[in-house]
Amino acid sequence: MSLLVVGSVALDSVRTPFGVRERSLGGAATHFSVSASFFADVSLVAVVGEDFTAEDEAVFHERKVNIGDLQRIPGGKTFRWVGEYGFDLNTAKTLDTELNVFADFKPQLTEAAKQKPFLFLANIQPELQRTVREQVDCRFVAMDTMNYWIESAREELLKTVAVVDALIINDAEVRELAGEANLIRAARKILTLGPRMLVVKRGEYGAAFFTKDNYFATPAFPVEDVFDPTGAGDSFAGGFMGYLAQADRIDDHALRRAIIYGSVMASFNVEEFSCDRLRRLTPEEIRRRFREFKDFTHFEI
Amino acid sequence: MSLLVVGSVALDSVRTPFGVRERSLGGAATHFSVSASFFADVSLVAVVGEDFTAEDEAVFHERKVNIGDLQRIPGGKTFRWVGEYGFDLNTAKTLDTELNVFADFKPQLTEAAKQKPFLFLANIQPELQRTVREQVDCRFVAMDTMNYWIESAREELLKTVAVVDALIINDAEVRELAGEANLIRAARKILTLGPRMLVVKRGEYGAAFFTKDNYFATPAFPVEDVFDPTGAGDSFAGGFMGYLAQADRIDDHALRRAIIYGSVMASFNVEEFSCDRLRRLTPEEIRRRFREFKDFTHFEI
Repeated sequence: MSLLVVGSVALDSVRTPFGVRERSLGGAATHFSVSASFFADVSLVAVVGEDFTAEDEAVFHERKVNIGDLQRIPGGKTFRWVGEYGFDLNTAKTLDTELNVFADFKPQLTEAAKQKPFLFLANIQPELQRTVREQVDCRFVAMDTMNYWIESAREELLKTVAVVDALIINDAEVRELAGEANLIRAARKILTLGPRMLVVKRGEYGAAFFTKDNYFATPAFPVEDVFDPTGAGDSFAGGFMGYLAQADRIDDHALRRAIIYGSVMASFNVEEFSCDRLRRLTPEEIRRRFREFKDFTHFEI
Repeated sequence: MSLLVVGSVALDSVRTPFGVRERSLGGAATHFSVSASFFADVSLVAVVGEDFTAEDEAVFHERKVNIGDLQRIPGGKTFRWVGEYGFDLNTAKTLDTELNVFADFKPQLTEAAKQKPFLFLANIQPELQRTVREQVDCRFVAMDTMNYWIESAREELLKTVAVVDALIINDAEVRELAGEANLIRAARKILTLGPRMLVVKRGEYGAAFFTKDNYFATPAFPVEDVFDPTGAGDSFAGGFMGYLAQADRIDDHALRRAIIYGSVMASFNVEEFSCDRLRRLTPEEIRRRFREFKDFTHFEI
């Protein structure tokens, strides 16, 4: 089955303890689509400026991501993010954000885009996410968000959360959105807001999955050389949604495997800058790491 | 097989967002031995003062923990800890510590104690841990420590770490001891210091286990009502060591199950103040929660 993602394509400048990368391809929709492309046909809706080059586009073509609906604004500049990570690599410090063409992004889906059965609303303004969601009648809709929207656009965010199937956010966001320090209680509270499932990204600690009747959790893959965490959460969401679209079923069996595939993709993403690691990733490497998850979490009853 | 623990027995005063408990039974060796008693015969070596009452002792008798080697110092006062937790419940703030009789604790093991095949050195001064370790020739020795010793007695600590089989510490301690932010690299470094295995306690995120050739990890049990985290790490160690002593084998199969049993015992411990939850815990509840771990971590290849 095929998958649509709406969100940001950006040019990032990132500094980590291991190096600096100026002007590399980034953005939530980028990391998501490159990751999901290993599992399903992916179409991307986003906006870039005139400074977006053929070289920037190359990764989408390599990964056969459909960018027919990637708008180009003549005379515009692509969304820019400048950030750095300290030695613990856990939280990015944003040094600069230029919205540029992204400030006026008003996604209008084509008829073809509206037909996709799976939709991922990457982290953008919640009202925009909702206008996209209202244009489709698809089988499964998931969304991300961030602390900024929880704090500055809470009412809009709650209206959007109410109309998706799955919320895929990190654990600090779960606690903040629910106003509850205990993750389990916070998750239960969020499940009363509309979504029938909540996926919690916990970075180096793994991921957890909640529905009203079900709970699943996994530790993260033990990555010895975390080089750049940028896009880890979006690569996770890409693996999760991509696998569901591929499996074409949304039951406990598939959802648990989707969480593991999400974790696999995030673990590769952090090994190098930008999408560098995913660009040369092979399906066999994905399968092998999936089996490694089984090996390092298995115990006998 | 039987198990010896050397460490602190304390009288705690704890404040959490959910209540206050003055003068309750605490201390690392207490939480460890009560937890381990569900799996194996446990003997405790520790010291208390004249203020330690029959009521304080009751839990050891109920759980059939052998306290024949619990020294009582006439005129002495028992070790006191006063601490509080904020809403996230992750880190205790120590408000007051009175070492009292613990300041002069010099454990001399009896011949019977020296015969125990499993030994746990709970968190005390590393030099003391080593003098205990040197008195025994047992099959399996594990130890805990804390940031205070890593910072103030590093050389002594390294000498002690070098002569145990397993180090059981939390993830911040792993990073601090190794001087390395990445947990996996930090773990590898610690395995060059002597111990052949490292158990990493990660609180609400679960636990991880490292040997030179093996890795295992588990998320924590999803406890909705964490009431008091005091002693969670020691209950974990008690379940881990207790299960190994019961299984009487130290191979990958048993070690993985031991990590899960440790996680099970920690998850019960935090549900109430002091040892209250463990006092009324049943073997059937332990078995049920162990199976629940399997349920919420299982996925199909």
